[in-house]
Amino acid sequence: MPRTAFFISDGTGITAESLGRSLLAQFASVDIRMVTKPYIDSLEKAHDLAAVIEATAVRDGETPIIIDTIVDQSIRQIITQTPGFKVDIFTTFLAPLEEELKTHSSYSVGHTHAIGRDDIYMQRIDSVHFALDNDDGARVHQYDKADIILVGVSRCGKTPTSLYLALQFGIRAANYPLTEDDLDEDGTLKMPKALAPHRHKLFGLTIDARRLKAIRSERRPNSRYCSIDQCLMEVQQAEALYRRYHVPFIDTTRFSIEEISTRMIAETGLQRRFSPR
Amino acid sequence: MPRTAFFISDGTGITAESLGRSLLAQFASVDIRMVTKPYIDSLEKAHDLAAVIEATAVRDGETPIIIDTIVDQSIRQIITQTPGFKVDIFTTFLAPLEEELKTHSSYSVGHTHAIGRDDIYMQRIDSVHFALDNDDGARVHQYDKADIILVGVSRCGKTPTSLYLALQFGIRAANYPLTEDDLDEDGTLKMPKALAPHRHKLFGLTIDARRLKAIRSERRPNSRYCSIDQCLMEVQQAEALYRRYHVPFIDTTRFSIEEISTRMIAETGLQRRFSPR
Repeated sequence: MPRTAFFISDGTGITAESLGRSLLAQFASVDIRMVTKPYIDSLEKAHDLAAVIEATAVRDGETPIIIDTIVDQSIRQIITQTPGFKVDIFTTFLAPLEEELKTHSSYSVGHTHAIGRDDIYMQRIDSVHFALDNDDGARVHQYDKADIILVGVSRCGKTPTSLYLALQFGIRAANYPLTEDDLDEDGTLKMPKALAPHRHKLFGLTIDARRLKAIRSERRPNSRYCSIDQCLMEVQQAEALYRRYHVPFIDTTRFSIEEISTRMIAETGLQRRFSPR
Repeated sequence: MPRTAFFISDGTGITAESLGRSLLAQFASVDIRMVTKPYIDSLEKAHDLAAVIEATAVRDGETPIIIDTIVDQSIRQIITQTPGFKVDIFTTFLAPLEEELKTHSSYSVGHTHAIGRDDIYMQRIDSVHFALDNDDGARVHQYDKADIILVGVSRCGKTPTSLYLALQFGIRAANYPLTEDDLDEDGTLKMPKALAPHRHKLFGLTIDARRLKAIRSERRPNSRYCSIDQCLMEVQQAEALYRRYHVPFIDTTRFSIEEISTRMIAETGLQRRFSPR
């Protein structure tokens, strides 16, 4: 029976969960079931959750781990009285910070967040629609408005990455597929016409050919599109193009979308339009 | 001159930044400039950053706040020797956790994360493409495969929300716009035909009419589409439909996309296909 960890919040639970996962990832040998409980914002919900925690302790035969960011002290108290090992983020760090900053904290996590701020919301919506409108080379006349243009072979991760950049950072990312349409007479991939004037904005994605084959097979099994020869050829051509034109590129095989995106920002010095919560 | 806070990591910086922002949000009265420095993974980068931190301390005339999740102790030491107020997430919480879990931690945050796990990557790509294929009522024959179908008037936040659900949680979210096409002869909005068989999967979005007007004005200024009368009428019709058919709904006006998404999951009991980093 795995041990259970609860990430509890009166808001989205994103902070508690993010920290909790990072801490517990350090204990790879321990089997931990992770449960996020957001919006615990009333005494009633807290009592219900306390009952769940108590039942879990009995069932697991182990003390659950509790990581919370609840603001309201009366709600919080119900949770802290349960049989759990508490990781108390806020009181641990807020007291020394109060001293350092010489002011009282509002201890109101989840309430003072930049939520629904009109400018951020507009930027996000705008960037998401920009990514959608300029997905997969669908439209190329807006490239002067793009912050970055992702290039790569079909299914190497261009679309999810451009959407992540838009949603998390308000970055306007277009993307353009490298295909056989742009092969030269001698069989070399040339710089697509639509991209030539925007070479300084290009960022390449590449991927292991076997991995690409696996991804493409999900979509169109047993096609030339997903054959290993085709995948190998396309990936080699793409990488040769990046090298020839000094396009920075990243191998998406081993990276999550978060990592690809944050690495791109770090490498290019792209400016975020806003910061994530 | 604002005081500076550095969120430093040898990985994406997502954990350090998320925790740092939450902690500092408690000090609304203090003017803090927040800077994220990801991928500080070499002695050279650490020395460069240390120089930046020192220069910042001099310029601000205030000690910078430093929140880091660097694993490598020799790299970390360079940062901890700078003149900064350190919030030490990992050593503060890992020691007691090691005791509780009766094992040593790998103290390797950012390295043991579930990065590039094939199943998660596939789920994400799949869900993102599902959201795109089923955006704005573009295709309705895949609704039996949808986990949830978002409905609402044009520009109330359906698309960004469905993409967020896909990227963060692997949830397959379709979305369908409520338009005048579905007005009855007596001027009442009726349940669109494509949605009728999937009523149990519907989730409504609504929005303040003035806010909707502002958003639509960005897109098509001075049109009927963005007039306050039109916005008011559409929103009222949509909300009446939700009530008539007992469709759960949420007002997106005051909420971030994170909140809309996590509230939806909490209210419907939707299962995440995976958990975010």
